[in-house]
Amino acid sequence: MSATVSPLAPTSYADMPSIRGVRMATAAAGIKYKNRTDVLLMAFDRPAAVAGVFTKSKCPSAPVDHCRANLGHGLALGVVVNSGNANAFTGVKGKAATQLTARSAAEALGCGENEIYLASTGVIGEPLDATKFAGVLGDMAKGATGDFWLEAAKAIMTTDTYPKVATRSAEIGGVTVTINGIAKGAGMIAPDMATMLSFVVTDADIAAPALQALLSAGVEPSFNSITVDSDTSTSDTLMLFATGAAAADGQTKVEDANDPRLAGFRAALDDLLKDLALQVVRDGEGARKMVEITVTGAESDLAAKKIAMSIANSPLVKTAVAGEDANWGRIVMAVGKSGEMADRDRLAIWFGDIRVAVDGERDPAYSEAATTAVMQGQDIPVRVDIGLGAGKATVWTCDLTKEYVAINGDYRS
Amino acid sequence: MSATVSPLAPTSYADMPSIRGVRMATAAAGIKYKNRTDVLLMAFDRPAAVAGVFTKSKCPSAPVDHCRANLGHGLALGVVVNSGNANAFTGVKGKAATQLTARSAAEALGCGENEIYLASTGVIGEPLDATKFAGVLGDMAKGATGDFWLEAAKAIMTTDTYPKVATRSAEIGGVTVTINGIAKGAGMIAPDMATMLSFVVTDADIAAPALQALLSAGVEPSFNSITVDSDTSTSDTLMLFATGAAAADGQTKVEDANDPRLAGFRAALDDLLKDLALQVVRDGEGARKMVEITVTGAESDLAAKKIAMSIANSPLVKTAVAGEDANWGRIVMAVGKSGEMADRDRLAIWFGDIRVAVDGERDPAYSEAATTAVMQGQDIPVRVDIGLGAGKATVWTCDLTKEYVAINGDYRS
Repeated sequence: MSATVSPLAPTSYADMPSIRGVRMATAAAGIKYKNRTDVLLMAFDRPAAVAGVFTKSKCPSAPVDHCRANLGHGLALGVVVNSGNANAFTGVKGKAATQLTARSAAEALGCGENEIYLASTGVIGEPLDATKFAGVLGDMAKGATGDFWLEAAKAIMTTDTYPKVATRSAEIGGVTVTINGIAKGAGMIAPDMATMLSFVVTDADIAAPALQALLSAGVEPSFNSITVDSDTSTSDTLMLFATGAAAADGQTKVEDANDPRLAGFRAALDDLLKDLALQVVRDGEGARKMVEITVTGAESDLAAKKIAMSIANSPLVKTAVAGEDANWGRIVMAVGKSGEMADRDRLAIWFGDIRVAVDGERDPAYSEAATTAVMQGQDIPVRVDIGLGAGKATVWTCDLTKEYVAINGDYRS
Repeated sequence: MSATVSPLAPTSYADMPSIRGVRMATAAAGIKYKNRTDVLLMAFDRPAAVAGVFTKSKCPSAPVDHCRANLGHGLALGVVVNSGNANAFTGVKGKAATQLTARSAAEALGCGENEIYLASTGVIGEPLDATKFAGVLGDMAKGATGDFWLEAAKAIMTTDTYPKVATRSAEIGGVTVTINGIAKGAGMIAPDMATMLSFVVTDADIAAPALQALLSAGVEPSFNSITVDSDTSTSDTLMLFATGAAAADGQTKVEDANDPRLAGFRAALDDLLKDLALQVVRDGEGARKMVEITVTGAESDLAAKKIAMSIANSPLVKTAVAGEDANWGRIVMAVGKSGEMADRDRLAIWFGDIRVAVDGERDPAYSEAATTAVMQGQDIPVRVDIGLGAGKATVWTCDLTKEYVAINGDYRS
């Protein structure tokens, strides 16, 4: 947790309603931080349907291995998340730590170890002392309460500068259901690595396969469309739980992701995921500006996404934004290096509503002063039209500042 | 040109011999800089065999288009290089500028426009006023001299902090030939974009197709194995010219790149290209340390290269190096995100001679103090063994410092 809150932080936090069927508790287990909560327990009253998407890293953390191995049966009774130690690249010790944690949580909740899901964030390569959980999980299970979302979001922060929460509601077959989510991002001062964790819970009654389909589709235009620094964590975890408590209001269970009754829920979920993802970008390490990059006219949506990410990950583009420099030449460079089809002489580029380049050269009407005014804003919209097809994509990133270098160049210990 | 020379600059410049068959001149045409040379003319006494490799950008500069279009006939009489303006993304004006420059140079040298090669470096998107060359190229052709390599290297600098020169000699069939090269890299204070330009000349008598084969092979483990910030210029150009003047000493022309007489030449050329490439890295924007990353045990050489580049381009790895932090967890992260096959539990990582991680966890003998001593050096060797196959690769990069952000975040104008 940083002393200084990101200038891009929300001015207020969402008022988070309870979700029937889930309770939470936090504790200070002393994993790494002193005098702050660092463990979160989520406990489900009855088995919740579960879906998850995880890091594509070939070197995933031990908790990611655990979640992947257990996701198949689709039911969750509990979730344990800790900050301060990622339990990644910890070998056999890491696996032993996840086993001990799952066993402790299963005993506390009276369920099977394979109904417990785990996530850890913090330093890589340090063995995680899971015995620290054993002493606290029993008490946490007893004291868990439903009205605890903001506290839960705080407990999973590492050096995020603000907790990330979001809530939405939707109707399924005339019954109102709620979706709550929390996330942590990348605002590191001392630890090793950005780790994105997010947990979303709904009281809707939706079967696990349908839930997984909704989540897999929803992650693409939200969390998979943001980048702070192009570095992919070993621990990225996004999970969605459905407690099914809305069945008490007469919501009949939805088994199929294509069920038309899910239209509103899908839209609300996608909107919540985007909300959380943008909160992560706005708390990117050292961030002072957010950049929304839209690519249109590419050969395909996939090509548009690749071009947009090439722009979003370019250090030269990101430092130009930090310097409030409408440096569209670097956008051209990033389009050119993406590897996707582009025709220099058809490119057009906008900052905000101002077209700065067209037909392969600077816009004849280009005004440095007007463009600079756009760059001086906090949110910078960039649009690139490739002029070849109908493919489009939008991604979000932040600027690259000296603070990013300071945060990540400071010595680890 | 920066006022402060990179701390990684060579302590002295190579003593550059003349190459028979080529003469050079520089001039101050006032493209962008005041009171410094910004145009280089290389003039060949007789048609030189020519080979070139260029940026893979889909948005290449007009001079790159010109060179690619003319490379087919394999002969060069002259080269014009300017700094201060990249003539990239300049539309029809850009093409007109290359045509005017080629025509002016062809008139000055009495040859065809398609025997003139062009390169430009500097700001993207600004029209290049090629009439500035027309007035100076005639005088430059008359005054060109053979003993001018260091001056030539200086004329093509943008904000490089030192000129980059290298020389080697080799024997072909008992005749000694010389290879000289110059390069410019990425040490930008105010302009828009890193642009890598390099020109290599030999007096050997080698046919263009053989020359191209040598160059295409030589560029892979040298210039294609360095990265400063992962951003690919629209203007990257590496050209190799053979004047054939060694024929006067009895060297018979080599037509085939596989001719065994080229063994020594090939080794000398490869060594010179690596020398120049490392000089470019050592003058990377804001660089204070050079990192040599060797990956062994990958599934293939290509996989090893991709993993090594994933490490070399990781902002988190590069900021850790800047902070003298032996943060091997970020190496694990970068291996994991590369997309190439890796087994977390077989990975081993070394900083210098110190193994910091093995069998998927921290080395039991890990010493923070000993590893920190390695990180405090100027050149940091990193080795990663993937433990899967025989693929290997070495790449070079520099650290990511606050100066990089300052250099590239400063306003363009």
